[in-house]
Amino acid sequence: MAKGNLLYGQSGGPTAVINASALGLFLEAMEREEIGEIYACHFGIEGFLEEDLINIRRMPREELLSLRHKPGAHFGSCRYQLKTEEEYEKILELFKKYNIRYFFYNGGNDSMDTCHKIGMYFNRVGYDCKVIGIPKTIDNDLPETDHTPGFGSAAKYVAVTEQEVITDLDSYKKGRVTILEVMGRNAGWLTAVSAYPQAKTGKPHLIYVPERPFVMQDFLSAVAKIYKKEKQCVVAVSEGIKDEQGKLISEGKLDAFGHSQLGGVASYLCGVVERELGIKTRYIEMSLLQRCAAHLASETDIEEAMACGREALRFALRGESDKMVGISVISRDPYAVEYITVPFEAVANQVKELSECYLYPENGKIHPDFLDYVKKFIED
Amino acid sequence: MAKGNLLYGQSGGPTAVINASALGLFLEAMEREEIGEIYACHFGIEGFLEEDLINIRRMPREELLSLRHKPGAHFGSCRYQLKTEEEYEKILELFKKYNIRYFFYNGGNDSMDTCHKIGMYFNRVGYDCKVIGIPKTIDNDLPETDHTPGFGSAAKYVAVTEQEVITDLDSYKKGRVTILEVMGRNAGWLTAVSAYPQAKTGKPHLIYVPERPFVMQDFLSAVAKIYKKEKQCVVAVSEGIKDEQGKLISEGKLDAFGHSQLGGVASYLCGVVERELGIKTRYIEMSLLQRCAAHLASETDIEEAMACGREALRFALRGESDKMVGISVISRDPYAVEYITVPFEAVANQVKELSECYLYPENGKIHPDFLDYVKKFIED
Repeated sequence: MAKGNLLYGQSGGPTAVINASALGLFLEAMEREEIGEIYACHFGIEGFLEEDLINIRRMPREELLSLRHKPGAHFGSCRYQLKTEEEYEKILELFKKYNIRYFFYNGGNDSMDTCHKIGMYFNRVGYDCKVIGIPKTIDNDLPETDHTPGFGSAAKYVAVTEQEVITDLDSYKKGRVTILEVMGRNAGWLTAVSAYPQAKTGKPHLIYVPERPFVMQDFLSAVAKIYKKEKQCVVAVSEGIKDEQGKLISEGKLDAFGHSQLGGVASYLCGVVERELGIKTRYIEMSLLQRCAAHLASETDIEEAMACGREALRFALRGESDKMVGISVISRDPYAVEYITVPFEAVANQVKELSECYLYPENGKIHPDFLDYVKKFIED
Repeated sequence: MAKGNLLYGQSGGPTAVINASALGLFLEAMEREEIGEIYACHFGIEGFLEEDLINIRRMPREELLSLRHKPGAHFGSCRYQLKTEEEYEKILELFKKYNIRYFFYNGGNDSMDTCHKIGMYFNRVGYDCKVIGIPKTIDNDLPETDHTPGFGSAAKYVAVTEQEVITDLDSYKKGRVTILEVMGRNAGWLTAVSAYPQAKTGKPHLIYVPERPFVMQDFLSAVAKIYKKEKQCVVAVSEGIKDEQGKLISEGKLDAFGHSQLGGVASYLCGVVERELGIKTRYIEMSLLQRCAAHLASETDIEEAMACGREALRFALRGESDKMVGISVISRDPYAVEYITVPFEAVANQVKELSECYLYPENGKIHPDFLDYVKKFIED
């Protein structure tokens, strides 16, 4: 491979391990003579368009190594869609100016689309640059990879936190209906992790994911039945649950102050339960905490996030381009993975829903086989 | 001391370390020949009235030792106020039946009141029983003790979580106004812990506690000023902040579904900021998580919780009664404590507010001296 400079960018919502991917990439790059300068975009491709770059070779070693355990997007993220031809021209101009021949973009579905479009543009204009996507999302909804870096740590957070909350709720003889809200707008992977505490404690009693319609009357009947028997009922819901018409349950449900917030479905359902069933309720939104809890990060997830960064460079140096790194699980027990590449077309703007094998015909429960899928992250 | 049986009960909201106090008491009791049977109330004094008891000597050793790290109230808690003379008579009858001569009740202000009343009743009718309170509350609002078991772990949770959230919020060039809601209905101790991440990162920018009036216009001006300069503003608020008339800010603020939930002030303030300042917002409620996060418990807090249980028995065996165990800090650096007793009259139904020395004339900031008060718990 020709010698050239490297550019790395972070995009979309952060995870507890996105910076570990950056670290894996940078450490590998520092060992390769094909790589000249190593740059990171300050605030993703949006920052790059303003020529806002960070020179990684000048970064203090201590700061660099701290990336392994630092949540948030250390180099700044963005939610920016490239729109105009001028923007692509600007990107090309800057890539030429900085002699960037290796470009790595670390993000989810939308970010892979950005990456894909940049790669296609370079091909069209004949600019030689390897473009590789590094996966990242707690939602775990990227196709063609067994799972995504970020999911494992969020899963561990959800499992540990739900178990602690359940123990707290068990403190009282007569409890409430407690509704836990988990992230995941289009896929129920993270909410399904509630099956893990359920296997240990019997709770949450009910687990609702976006892959099946949420039927309000069925939900209320199920809650009433459990509460009658156990004097409490714990429910886990994905923020993205939808009704039979495909409309988000929380959609258009403004609060009393007229502001709608992402999520809020647990709070809304608490209102319905209080009104329809006359039972006291409490909602708990895991909110940002589930994507930034580095103190509870999964070691497996950290290792894999670093490996995805490292492998991204290795694939590029072997001549691959216009692909995302993926994780293929060869064996769950003992756990073993290998790293693969996935064409951008297969992931850009695509959503991988929770697999059918983990679902039942109706919403509210998760197949126990799912435990084998997640336990490695929770128990490490 | 005469030989007799021991009764222990848990009361009020659980903490991450209330079971550690139970463990300290039981381990000490098992070494003392004055103690015969060891009972725990199942669901506090309410369960005791129904003769619902657990025999600790029959508890498997493994389960007993797991109390050190188990959140929630393992033996069941209650929020029960003794009202009628008949209830006191029933308690006396059951104490005689089970020959209980040592009674330990583990709770906060209200629970100490219950304990106090039972002790006074026994004195009146001439029943010989040592009654000792074991302190417990994440709110840290019990008088005459430097701090309470449970506070340290909640403080560590708030500090660590806020730092992680702040790192996540820094991922974007242009942020929002983010409002973090911390527990503490009558005292700002736990919210004041936000001064710790503030000292490290500059955020939260503003910290509001219930000890000073919350003036909406001042709040909005402060937020607008910070947002203008930094393109983001992070605020920590106690759920118990009150206006100049002493009315809870969140009081009567029902959500769109007509249900009011304890807390909710952050969500309410987000609505005000969006409406008045036109800035996007996000609220994060730490909710139950801050009182049950045993995975982040402070080692100092666990040790002190155990010691409070152990010392409670020692005080009783030395003939003390109608008192609560307290913690006196002899030195902050190096950290050293001793255990004291406090008369029930000084704590029952009393609230210790955040000390004046940690406050400023206006709400919104915390004196840096407070860092010396909390750092031991956060850094251990």
